[in-house]
Amino acid sequence: MSVYVNPVCMSVLVGSSCVPMCFHVLTPCPALFAFPHPPCQELQPLMAQLDLKHGDEKQAVAPAQTKPPPCLQKCKAHLLKLVSYFSGDMAPFAKWMEKQFFLLQLLDWVLRGAAQVMFVNNPLSGLIIFAGLILQNYWWALNGFVGTLFATISALILQQNRGAIAAGLYGYNGILVGLLMAVFSNAGNWYWWLLLPNIFMSMMCPVVSSALASINSRWDLPVFTLPFNILVCLHMVATGHYNHHFPQVLIQPRTELPNITWEEIDLAKLFMSVPVGVGQVYGCDNPWTGGIFIISLFISSPITCAHAVLGSTIGMLSGLALAAPFGAIYFGLWGYNCVLACIAIGGMFYALTWQVHLLAITCGFFCAYLGSAIANIMSAFGLPACTWPFCLSALTFLLITTETNKIFKLPLAKVTYPEKNLCYFWKMKKQEKLEKLEEEEKKKIEEQQRAIEEGILNEKEQLRINLSAMEEASLTQIVTGPEPQSEQRDIDGEQTPDYRPEEMPVNYV
Amino acid sequence: MSVYVNPVCMSVLVGSSCVPMCFHVLTPCPALFAFPHPPCQELQPLMAQLDLKHGDEKQAVAPAQTKPPPCLQKCKAHLLKLVSYFSGDMAPFAKWMEKQFFLLQLLDWVLRGAAQVMFVNNPLSGLIIFAGLILQNYWWALNGFVGTLFATISALILQQNRGAIAAGLYGYNGILVGLLMAVFSNAGNWYWWLLLPNIFMSMMCPVVSSALASINSRWDLPVFTLPFNILVCLHMVATGHYNHHFPQVLIQPRTELPNITWEEIDLAKLFMSVPVGVGQVYGCDNPWTGGIFIISLFISSPITCAHAVLGSTIGMLSGLALAAPFGAIYFGLWGYNCVLACIAIGGMFYALTWQVHLLAITCGFFCAYLGSAIANIMSAFGLPACTWPFCLSALTFLLITTETNKIFKLPLAKVTYPEKNLCYFWKMKKQEKLEKLEEEEKKKIEEQQRAIEEGILNEKEQLRINLSAMEEASLTQIVTGPEPQSEQRDIDGEQTPDYRPEEMPVNYV
Amino acid sequence: MSVYVNPVCMSVLVGSSCVPMCFHVLTPCPALFAFPHPPCQELQPLMAQLDLKHGDEKQAVAPAQTKPPPCLQKCKAHLLKLVSYFSGDMAPFAKWMEKQFFLLQLLDWVLRGAAQVMFVNNPLSGLIIFAGLILQNYWWALNGFVGTLFATISALILQQNRGAIAAGLYGYNGILVGLLMAVFSNAGNWYWWLLLPNIFMSMMCPVVSSALASINSRWDLPVFTLPFNILVCLHMVATGHYNHHFPQVLIQPRTELPNITWEEIDLAKLFMSVPVGVGQVYGCDNPWTGGIFIISLFISSPITCAHAVLGSTIGMLSGLALAAPFGAIYFGLWGYNCVLACIAIGGMFYALTWQVHLLAITCGFFCAYLGSAIANIMSAFGLPACTWPFCLSALTFLLITTETNKIFKLPLAKVTYPEKNLCYFWKMKKQEKLEKLEEEEKKKIEEQQRAIEEGILNEKEQLRINLSAMEEASLTQIVTGPEPQSEQRDIDGEQTPDYRPEEMPVNYV
Repeated sequence: MSVYVNPVCMSVLVGSSCVPMCFHVLTPCPALFAFPHPPCQELQPLMAQLDLKHGDEKQAVAPAQTKPPPCLQKCKAHLLKLVSYFSGDMAPFAKWMEKQFFLLQLLDWVLRGAAQVMFVNNPLSGLIIFAGLILQNYWWALNGFVGTLFATISALILQQNRGAIAAGLYGYNGILVGLLMAVFSNAGNWYWWLLLPNIFMSMMCPVVSSALASINSRWDLPVFTLPFNILVCLHMVATGHYNHHFPQVLIQPRTELPNITWEEIDLAKLFMSVPVGVGQVYGCDNPWTGGIFIISLFISSPITCAHAVLGSTIGMLSGLALAAPFGAIYFGLWGYNCVLACIAIGGMFYALTWQVHLLAITCGFFCAYLGSAIANIMSAFGLPACTWPFCLSALTFLLITTETNKIFKLPLAKVTYPEKNLCYFWKMKKQEKLEKLEEEEKKKIEEQQRAIEEGILNEKEQLRINLSAMEEASLTQIVTGPEPQSEQRDIDGEQTPDYRPEEMPVNYV
Repeated sequence: MSVYVNPVCMSVLVGSSCVPMCFHVLTPCPALFAFPHPPCQELQPLMAQLDLKHGDEKQAVAPAQTKPPPCLQKCKAHLLKLVSYFSGDMAPFAKWMEKQFFLLQLLDWVLRGAAQVMFVNNPLSGLIIFAGLILQNYWWALNGFVGTLFATISALILQQNRGAIAAGLYGYNGILVGLLMAVFSNAGNWYWWLLLPNIFMSMMCPVVSSALASINSRWDLPVFTLPFNILVCLHMVATGHYNHHFPQVLIQPRTELPNITWEEIDLAKLFMSVPVGVGQVYGCDNPWTGGIFIISLFISSPITCAHAVLGSTIGMLSGLALAAPFGAIYFGLWGYNCVLACIAIGGMFYALTWQVHLLAITCGFFCAYLGSAIANIMSAFGLPACTWPFCLSALTFLLITTETNKIFKLPLAKVTYPEKNLCYFWKMKKQEKLEKLEEEEKKKIEEQQRAIEEGILNEKEQLRINLSAMEEASLTQIVTGPEPQSEQRDIDGEQTPDYRPEEMPVNYV
Repeated sequence: MSVYVNPVCMSVLVGSSCVPMCFHVLTPCPALFAFPHPPCQELQPLMAQLDLKHGDEKQAVAPAQTKPPPCLQKCKAHLLKLVSYFSGDMAPFAKWMEKQFFLLQLLDWVLRGAAQVMFVNNPLSGLIIFAGLILQNYWWALNGFVGTLFATISALILQQNRGAIAAGLYGYNGILVGLLMAVFSNAGNWYWWLLLPNIFMSMMCPVVSSALASINSRWDLPVFTLPFNILVCLHMVATGHYNHHFPQVLIQPRTELPNITWEEIDLAKLFMSVPVGVGQVYGCDNPWTGGIFIISLFISSPITCAHAVLGSTIGMLSGLALAAPFGAIYFGLWGYNCVLACIAIGGMFYALTWQVHLLAITCGFFCAYLGSAIANIMSAFGLPACTWPFCLSALTFLLITTETNKIFKLPLAKVTYPEKNLCYFWKMKKQEKLEKLEEEEKKKIEEQQRAIEEGILNEKEQLRINLSAMEEASLTQIVTGPEPQSEQRDIDGEQTPDYRPEEMPVNYV
């Protein structure tokens, strides 16, 4: 746990990981932040699936706005199309997978589950994350895999929603349970008995997820990693440090803090704490592993990746502000909750606007504060903070209601990944504008129609009066009252639905 | 608290308690588990009340299926009828009670309240439970009685639902508050001042119950023993071990665990821990008391009784798996939460199917795990685990949503006792099937009708065309459009509601 | 923190504070409690605003009941009108403020926010409260002001409801956060760095308030001071006693209690603990400050003031009953939660009846019990109890549902201050009675009409039969069936809505 990579190597890693990817995707990246009129077309290959599904007559106007691409742009379009197969949520791959062998499908779900910890629904990212885990520790990676696998199987047994299982939404708590139970076990690596509680707790994940979803769905909120937090804390506090079967590492409350002098600070380690913070989401302290995780995020969604790095930085700064021991900051303990909180608020569950971006930064600071508080409380019971701070701060910020439409919380069923969410938000805004325009036009037309109709009605009424006078001649006066009025209403109802016959002076009876 | 009965006596107790009862009821007992086509008729006397209420024309077919009973079966039927007066929820007795003197009614409610701790709505079970408590400790029994009494009175003062009070649903938290405050008091028996906080806390039970019910009812969940947990923990932590007026027993967190060797295990004590676990629901460590409680459960509902014993066994096994000190297992501390959780899930709030039975077992293991965790956390505050583990695990398992119809959660208003719940479930399933069949037949008839009507309609349309042509001759062309169409719709709407005039080619205008 | 004022001075203070005010308002005060027929007219100037808004034709009857005031009463009326400008929620002042300079408005909101801690929406009370705070400690008062200011500004940035901001509902958590962070800081007065976390936490108040409101609004519950509790505990536990930047005062769990002998009790201090308890709502231990707070409450609402004193007394008595150390009782630690709980239940969120008054007293005792429990638990983490006991007990008592209409919970949108709430309750009751009477009369008239109509209908039917016979002659037999029946229904529907044509024997076909 104390393997610190040379900061020089680290910077190379981050650099190298970015360079090839930037070539492909970074061109649209600045465009994403170029608000308020973003050129949506450059990212369209990423959202091809969305357009096909939701494309209606209004979308048909869009291609007309994009100019025919010249030769250079053609090449770029080809590249982007290739990228679109591996980025985002890899929807074409998911569709192709549906017809494959069950075990292959299960592997896809497990990989997606591994990546869903970071809100990424992408099997390639999941594969890279597993690679990062193997780089960190074989035994931990095995436990993580077992956890994801059994959590997914348990969800199948419990007959949970198939779409959610296929998106890995029942696996991500499993991988965390598996990993962190191995990380916090005091029995050392390759203590095979650990697989027993690991499997039991992983299989409880869908149960707890389903139960929490029943509660959170009332506020249209996700369950985040709450099942993992509950189950790992459960296992750790149920057994404890002195247990003979499943001993845990000893965590004790701090009663003293070392004197901090700003001269002692190691800037290289401080810089490295950013990728380490990302790695600590999976309990990994290897900066290379953290770097690999950053790459895996970048593949799927550059916005997610940017907010992950931002979150880790916020956590590090907060640690310095609250006089935390440098060791804990270097070790990434101040970062991982902020990473998740920043991703969740910054574009994942809110549509990314500048206001939401600021909200995500605020949430990051709040999460860091909360992280310190929860770590101190949990240590009284020999427990780590897990991702409780992230869950609580993100849920708090998702529960906010404001009167501005710049902070738009996506309906949970529409959440995919930040770029697609943004497109959904823009499309919705456009539609709203169109509807407003249409309504205004409609009103104008109606007013014109009303003027015309009044002329016609006068004619009609004359005819009707004649007719009803003829009919009424054969009936007594009691019956005549309601009958012609109801006929009148039927006719009006079909010709001018907005026309109120009550407001019309009934001068023909 | 350390009175352990000879295991040989114990087995006699369990045996003797079963023999006389088996004679009466055990014959239908296997039938209950003979899934999927259970002979419901043998248990009908138990559910006579239900049939009278919900009996409709569909029920009238049922007696035809049961063959006329021969001489031997007649005798059996008489016996079963006798049993039906004392088993289940004793509904005929409750009806008879309604006309009695108020104090007698109150006693009925108090006795039902005592039994409701185990989800049993039966005054006879309550009486037997009080007998068990007296066997354990006079002072505790008195405190339990005072608690139940004042909780019920307080519910009357607060004008809570009379039906719920009569079912003992406001008393069971009172008995637990009274009992456990006496059990955990460090002032010794017959410390009369204890009755003061006892009465205050018992009277707070309906307040907390009502408040929690307001929250839980949103998810159609019961409050279980949460009010008891809240109030007893409140009293204990508000006073504590060092209080001068109301000192509590000293509970401290474990910092070390004794070495466990499997040779040291005492199988007799381990076996005895099953009834002790049932007894610990009421804070009693006397295995005889536990045995009496098992009998009281068996009188009302064999399914409840079976799950209670199963739960206690699951708790004991979990304790062994998690390397708990043998003393705690023998003392029943691992059992009582699992007893309650198994009863709640296994047939009480879910309709008992094999899937639900497995769910109840899973819930038992989860509850045991949770029990260990909560006991460790609460001991940091000098508190016992109470029944928090049961409440939290049962609520979690009741919040699950699945896409299978084999796990059917009963609406809270329909929950009575496992056998009756099952009958409700089967009846509902039957009705669903009947409705499906009816719908299919209806569709067939409709199709036939449609064919006939089309012939008629053609005739009608001819007539209408003639008529409308005549009418229209006296009107301008503007008015003619909608009028005949609306008339057409009215006529169609009343004769063939499924017929869509829009789909019909309008060839007559 | 150990400045105890001479009890003689104290009694003078309380006396002097009451005398001038009693002269003005205490005459209607007993009338308020004279249930069940309270003379509402004497308090009408206070509620003038309400009557103007909701006044309808029913209100027009009320003035007729009040006799024309003689000369003495005229003078009194003038006085009451003058009082009405400064008491209650000072609605005319709020209206006048709307047109003023923004900074002046902000000051109004801040002052209202300061008073809203005690549920008082009155800038004058807020001003007096700030005076009391300055009397206690300059540094604390400054921190409180900064907290209120930034909480209000943050609510404006987050675009929260303007009406709620103007009522100070986003400021009261801010003042408590600011004050208590200064009170519990171990860095001494005038440690200017403290303003940084103070501003951050104050600005988080509207975020947490908004989030909690999203949850609590499902049960129509207020958020009380929960945001303050969460944020101050967050700050204290995140930093702790040993922090180098923001050290907190050391709070440790009690492991021993001093021997208490009733001879040692100091009755003067015990009496003084009542105003100190009120002062401790704002963390102030100066009895003069507490007295000033009592005055500020009295200005706005005598009922609130009475319940505040009652609550503080209940807390003191509970402390004695539970063998608390006398020092804690003298210091007001047993009082402040009960003060708030008594105000909240006794007239603020329930309409004040005798039953509600008893409920408020019960809630006070429950709150005191809970206060002791929570203080013991929180001290394990080095935390004070804050106002958690008040929040939890008041929420519990607001969640109760009963079948009596004497305990009427006001809809949250209608809550203003106890006197106005009462008027709303009485008006609602009157309206209900009127509606009942009207319904009964309506039924009588309908019955008379029905008798008349039956005669007319017989005539009508004769005519209809003749007509339909004529029409049907030109159509086939299939069409005739439904047509006359539908016409019949239309006529009935408009003339006699309660008349059921299905029940009428159709003897004319």
